[in-house]
Amino acid sequence: MPLATPIDATPEQLANVQFNEHGLVAAIVQEEGTGDVLMMAWMTADTLRQSLEEGRTVFWSRSRAEVWRKGDTSGDRQFIRAAYYDCDGDTLLFVVEQEGRGACHTGAHSCFFRSFGVSEPSDVEHGDQTQSS
Amino acid sequence: MPLATPIDATPEQLANVQFNEHGLVAAIVQEEGTGDVLMMAWMTADTLRQSLEEGRTVFWSRSRAEVWRKGDTSGDRQFIRAAYYDCDGDTLLFVVEQEGRGACHTGAHSCFFRSFGVSEPSDVEHGDQTQSS
Repeated sequence: MPLATPIDATPEQLANVQFNEHGLVAAIVQEEGTGDVLMMAWMTADTLRQSLEEGRTVFWSRSRAEVWRKGDTSGDRQFIRAAYYDCDGDTLLFVVEQEGRGACHTGAHSCFFRSFGVSEPSDVEHGDQTQSS
Repeated sequence: MPLATPIDATPEQLANVQFNEHGLVAAIVQEEGTGDVLMMAWMTADTLRQSLEEGRTVFWSRSRAEVWRKGDTSGDRQFIRAAYYDCDGDTLLFVVEQEGRGACHTGAHSCFFRSFGVSEPSDVEHGDQTQSS
Protein backbone atom coordinates (compact mmCIF):
# COMPACT_ATOMS: atom_id res chain seq x y z
CA MET A 1 0.00 0.00 0.00
CA PRO A 2 1.34 3.48 -0.77
CA LEU A 3 2.52 5.49 2.21
CA ALA A 4 0.90 8.81 2.99
CA THR A 5 3.47 11.57 3.41
CA PRO A 6 2.24 14.79 5.00
CA ILE A 7 3.46 18.07 3.53
CA ASP A 8 4.46 20.70 6.06
CA ALA A 9 3.31 23.90 4.35
CA THR A 10 4.33 27.21 5.89
CA PRO A 11 1.78 29.90 6.80
CA GLU A 12 3.42 32.11 4.17
CA GLN A 13 2.88 29.49 1.48
CA LEU A 14 -0.75 28.96 2.48
CA ALA A 15 -1.35 32.72 2.54
CA ASN A 16 -0.50 32.83 -1.18
CA VAL A 17 -3.54 30.73 -2.06
CA GLN A 18 -6.44 32.72 -3.45
CA PHE A 19 -9.97 31.33 -3.10
CA ASN A 20 -12.75 32.35 -5.47
CA GLU A 21 -16.11 33.90 -4.57
CA HIS A 22 -17.33 30.44 -3.53
CA GLY A 23 -14.32 29.88 -1.25
CA LEU A 24 -12.81 27.36 -3.66
CA VAL A 25 -9.47 26.91 -5.42
CA ALA A 26 -8.92 24.73 -8.49
CA ALA A 27 -6.71 21.67 -7.95
CA ILE A 28 -5.12 19.82 -10.88
CA VAL A 29 -3.99 16.26 -10.18
CA GLN A 30 -1.08 14.79 -12.13
CA GLU A 31 0.29 11.27 -11.84
CA GLU A 32 3.85 10.85 -10.64
CA GLY A 33 6.03 8.99 -13.09
CA THR A 34 3.72 8.99 -16.11
CA GLY A 35 3.00 12.73 -15.94
CA ASP A 36 -0.61 12.01 -16.95
CA VAL A 37 -3.06 14.75 -15.98
CA LEU A 38 -5.68 12.72 -14.13
CA MET A 39 -8.38 15.17 -13.09
CA MET A 40 -9.28 18.65 -11.90
CA ALA A 41 -11.41 19.31 -8.83
CA TRP A 42 -11.92 21.98 -6.16
CA MET A 43 -10.68 22.51 -2.62
CA THR A 44 -11.73 24.72 0.24
CA ALA A 45 -9.18 26.14 2.69
CA ASP A 46 -10.14 23.28 5.02
CA THR A 47 -9.77 20.48 2.47
CA LEU A 48 -6.47 21.95 1.26
CA ARG A 49 -5.17 21.84 4.82
CA GLN A 50 -6.50 18.29 5.23
CA SER A 51 -4.88 17.22 1.97
CA LEU A 52 -1.47 18.50 3.04
CA GLU A 53 -1.78 17.11 6.57
CA GLU A 54 -2.98 13.68 5.47
CA GLY A 55 -0.87 13.45 2.33
CA ARG A 56 -4.01 12.46 0.41
CA THR A 57 -6.22 14.56 -1.84
CA VAL A 58 -9.38 15.81 -0.16
CA PHE A 59 -11.71 17.87 -2.33
CA TRP A 60 -14.95 19.79 -2.02
CA SER A 61 -17.71 18.22 -4.08
CA ARG A 62 -19.66 21.08 -5.61
CA SER A 63 -22.46 18.78 -6.80
CA ARG A 64 -22.93 17.12 -3.41
CA ALA A 65 -21.84 20.19 -1.39
CA GLU A 66 -19.74 18.07 0.92
CA VAL A 67 -16.17 17.10 1.71
CA TRP A 68 -14.94 14.44 -0.72
CA ARG A 69 -12.05 12.40 0.60
CA LYS A 70 -10.97 10.96 -2.73
CA GLY A 71 -10.97 7.16 -2.67
CA ASP A 72 -12.85 6.64 0.60
CA THR A 73 -15.70 5.06 -1.36
CA SER A 74 -13.97 3.89 -4.53
CA GLY A 75 -10.66 2.83 -3.01
CA ASP A 76 -8.89 4.92 -5.64
CA ARG A 77 -6.97 7.15 -3.25
CA GLN A 78 -4.35 9.66 -4.32
CA PHE A 79 -1.17 9.91 -2.25
CA ILE A 80 0.44 13.31 -2.61
CA ARG A 81 4.13 13.35 -3.58
CA ALA A 82 4.44 17.08 -4.33
CA ALA A 83 2.14 20.09 -4.24
CA TYR A 84 2.50 23.43 -6.05
CA TYR A 85 0.60 26.71 -6.32
CA ASP A 86 0.67 28.87 -9.40
CA CYS A 87 1.93 32.40 -10.02
CA ASP A 88 -1.29 34.10 -8.98
CA GLY A 89 -2.16 31.50 -6.34
CA ASP A 90 -5.56 30.54 -7.71
CA THR A 91 -4.68 27.10 -9.04
CA LEU A 92 -2.97 24.19 -7.29
CA LEU A 93 -1.10 21.24 -8.75
CA PHE A 94 -0.80 17.94 -6.91
CA VAL A 95 1.56 15.24 -8.12
CA VAL A 96 0.23 11.96 -6.78
CA GLU A 97 0.60 8.23 -6.62
CA GLN A 98 -2.77 7.03 -7.89
CA GLU A 99 -4.15 3.96 -6.17
CA GLY A 100 -6.53 1.47 -7.80
CA ARG A 101 -7.83 1.64 -11.33
CA GLY A 102 -7.50 5.36 -11.80
CA ALA A 103 -8.86 8.78 -10.99
CA CYS A 104 -12.11 8.86 -12.94
CA HIS A 105 -15.50 7.78 -11.63
CA THR A 106 -16.10 6.17 -15.05
CA GLY A 107 -13.30 3.70 -14.37
CA ALA A 108 -10.91 5.44 -16.74
CA HIS A 109 -7.36 6.10 -15.60
CA SER A 110 -7.68 9.82 -16.38
CA CYS A 111 -10.82 11.94 -16.58
CA PHE A 112 -9.44 13.35 -19.86
CA PHE A 113 -10.12 10.25 -21.93
CA ARG A 114 -12.00 11.99 -24.76
CA SER A 115 -10.22 14.14 -27.33
CA PHE A 116 -11.42 16.74 -29.77
CA GLY A 117 -10.93 15.90 -33.43
CA VAL A 118 -10.44 12.66 -35.25
CA SER A 119 -10.26 9.62 -32.98
CA GLU A 120 -6.81 8.19 -32.38
CA PRO A 121 -5.64 5.29 -30.25
CA SER A 122 -4.80 7.82 -27.49
CA ASP A 123 -8.49 8.74 -27.47
CA VAL A 124 -9.29 5.34 -26.04
CA GLU A 125 -9.16 5.10 -22.26
CA HIS A 126 -5.70 5.41 -20.84
CA GLY A 127 -3.90 2.20 -20.00
CA ASP A 128 -4.86 0.09 -17.05
CA GLN A 129 -1.30 -0.81 -16.23
CA THR A 130 -1.11 1.33 -13.10
CA GLN A 131 -1.75 -0.97 -10.19
CA SER A 132 -0.80 -0.40 -6.59
CA SER A 133 0.76 -3.32 -4.87
CA MET B 1 8.87 28.14 -36.10
CA PRO B 2 6.30 25.64 -34.86
CA LEU B 3 3.45 24.88 -37.23
CA ALA B 4 -0.11 25.55 -36.15
CA THR B 5 -2.34 22.52 -36.69
CA PRO B 6 -6.08 23.12 -36.50
CA ILE B 7 -8.20 20.53 -34.70
CA ASP B 8 -11.44 19.62 -36.43
CA ALA B 9 -13.79 19.11 -33.47
CA THR B 10 -17.20 17.65 -34.17
CA PRO B 11 -20.42 19.40 -33.05
CA GLU B 12 -21.03 16.39 -30.76
CA GLN B 13 -17.65 16.86 -29.07
CA LEU B 14 -18.20 20.59 -28.62
CA ALA B 15 -21.70 19.97 -27.23
CA ASN B 16 -20.11 18.01 -24.37
CA VAL B 17 -18.37 21.11 -23.03
CA GLN B 18 -20.06 22.66 -20.01
CA PHE B 19 -19.54 26.35 -19.29
CA ASN B 20 -19.94 27.78 -15.81
CA GLU B 21 -22.25 30.60 -14.70
CA HIS B 22 -19.77 33.09 -16.18
CA GLY B 23 -19.72 31.29 -19.54
CA LEU B 24 -16.22 29.95 -18.91
CA VAL B 25 -14.55 26.55 -18.93
CA ALA B 26 -11.23 25.76 -17.23
CA ALA B 27 -8.34 24.90 -19.56
CA ILE B 28 -5.22 23.12 -18.32
CA VAL B 29 -2.15 23.44 -20.51
CA GLN B 30 0.45 20.67 -20.51
CA GLU B 31 3.71 20.62 -22.45
CA GLU B 32 4.18 17.94 -25.08
CA GLY B 33 7.22 15.79 -24.46
CA THR B 34 8.09 16.91 -20.94
CA GLY B 35 4.55 16.43 -19.59
CA ASP B 36 5.01 19.57 -17.50
CA VAL B 37 1.76 21.23 -16.43
CA LEU B 38 2.39 24.80 -17.58
CA MET B 39 -0.70 26.79 -16.55
CA MET B 40 -4.44 26.88 -16.12
CA ALA B 41 -6.65 29.55 -17.63
CA TRP B 42 -10.21 30.02 -18.86
CA MET B 43 -11.95 29.88 -22.22
CA THR B 44 -15.29 31.04 -23.52
CA ALA B 45 -17.15 29.10 -26.22
CA ASP B 46 -15.73 31.58 -28.72
CA THR B 47 -12.10 31.32 -27.58
CA LEU B 48 -12.36 27.51 -27.44
CA ARG B 49 -13.54 27.52 -31.06
CA GLN B 50 -10.74 29.95 -31.98
CA SER B 51 -8.16 27.78 -30.22
CA LEU B 52 -9.20 24.67 -32.11
CA GLU B 53 -9.48 26.49 -35.45
CA GLU B 54 -6.14 28.30 -35.12
CA GLY B 55 -4.28 25.48 -33.37
CA ARG B 56 -3.11 27.99 -30.76
CA THR B 57 -4.43 28.60 -27.26
CA VAL B 58 -6.77 31.58 -26.98
CA PHE B 59 -8.10 32.34 -23.52
CA TRP B 60 -10.50 34.74 -21.85
CA SER B 61 -8.68 37.05 -19.45
CA ARG B 62 -10.92 37.44 -16.42
CA SER B 63 -8.82 40.29 -14.99
CA ARG B 64 -8.81 42.30 -18.21
CA ALA B 65 -12.21 41.01 -19.41
CA GLU B 66 -10.95 40.51 -22.93
CA VAL B 67 -9.82 37.86 -25.38
CA TRP B 68 -6.24 36.81 -24.65
CA ARG B 69 -4.47 35.29 -27.64
CA LYS B 70 -1.62 33.70 -25.70
CA GLY B 71 1.75 34.91 -26.94
CA ASP B 72 0.55 37.78 -29.13
CA THR B 73 2.31 40.22 -26.79
CA SER B 74 4.96 38.01 -25.17
CA GLY B 75 5.82 35.85 -28.17
CA ASP B 76 5.34 32.80 -25.99
CA ARG B 77 2.66 31.16 -28.11
CA GLN B 78 1.29 27.67 -27.47
CA PHE B 79 0.74 25.40 -30.48
CA ILE B 80 -1.89 22.78 -29.74
CA ARG B 81 -0.93 19.17 -30.44
CA ALA B 82 -3.90 17.47 -28.73
CA ALA B 83 -7.01 18.63 -26.89
CA TYR B 84 -9.17 16.71 -24.43
CA TYR B 85 -12.32 17.30 -22.37
CA ASP B 86 -12.97 15.59 -19.10
CA CYS B 87 -15.68 13.15 -17.98
CA ASP B 88 -18.16 15.86 -16.99
CA GLY B 89 -17.07 18.28 -19.70
CA ASP B 90 -16.20 21.18 -17.44
CA THR B 91 -12.42 21.05 -17.75
CA LEU B 92 -10.27 20.97 -20.89
CA LEU B 93 -6.70 19.74 -21.34
CA PHE B 94 -4.46 21.10 -24.09
CA VAL B 95 -1.16 19.43 -24.89
CA VAL B 96 1.00 22.07 -26.54
CA GLU B 97 4.33 22.94 -28.01
CA GLN B 98 5.39 25.95 -25.93
CA GLU B 99 7.20 28.69 -27.79
CA GLY B 100 9.70 31.08 -26.22
CA ARG B 101 10.78 31.07 -22.61
CA GLY B 102 7.72 29.46 -21.14
CA ALA B 103 4.10 29.86 -20.19
CA CYS B 104 4.30 32.13 -17.15
CA HIS B 105 4.17 35.92 -17.21
CA THR B 106 6.92 35.88 -14.55
CA GLY B 107 9.32 34.33 -17.06
CA ALA B 108 9.11 30.92 -15.47
CA HIS B 109 8.64 27.89 -17.71
CA SER B 110 5.57 26.77 -15.74
CA CYS B 111 3.26 28.88 -13.59
CA PHE B 112 3.58 26.16 -10.91
CA PHE B 113 7.12 27.06 -9.83
CA ARG B 114 6.39 27.31 -6.10
CA SER B 115 5.82 24.24 -3.96
CA PHE B 116 4.30 23.71 -0.56
CA GLY B 117 6.58 22.32 2.09
CA VAL B 118 10.30 22.37 2.64
CA SER B 119 12.19 24.55 0.20
CA GLU B 120 13.82 22.84 -2.72
CA PRO B 121 15.70 24.40 -5.62
CA SER B 122 12.46 24.51 -7.64
CA ASP B 123 10.77 26.32 -4.75
CA VAL B 124 13.09 29.29 -4.92
CA GLU B 125 11.39 32.32 -6.44
CA HIS B 126 12.93 33.78 -9.53
CA GLY B 127 15.57 36.38 -8.83
CA ASP B 128 16.22 35.06 -5.35
CA GLN B 129 18.64 32.34 -6.27
CA THR B 130 21.99 32.76 -4.58
CA GLN B 131 24.96 33.09 -6.86
CA SER B 132 27.66 31.72 -4.60
CA SER B 133 27.88 28.21 -3.30
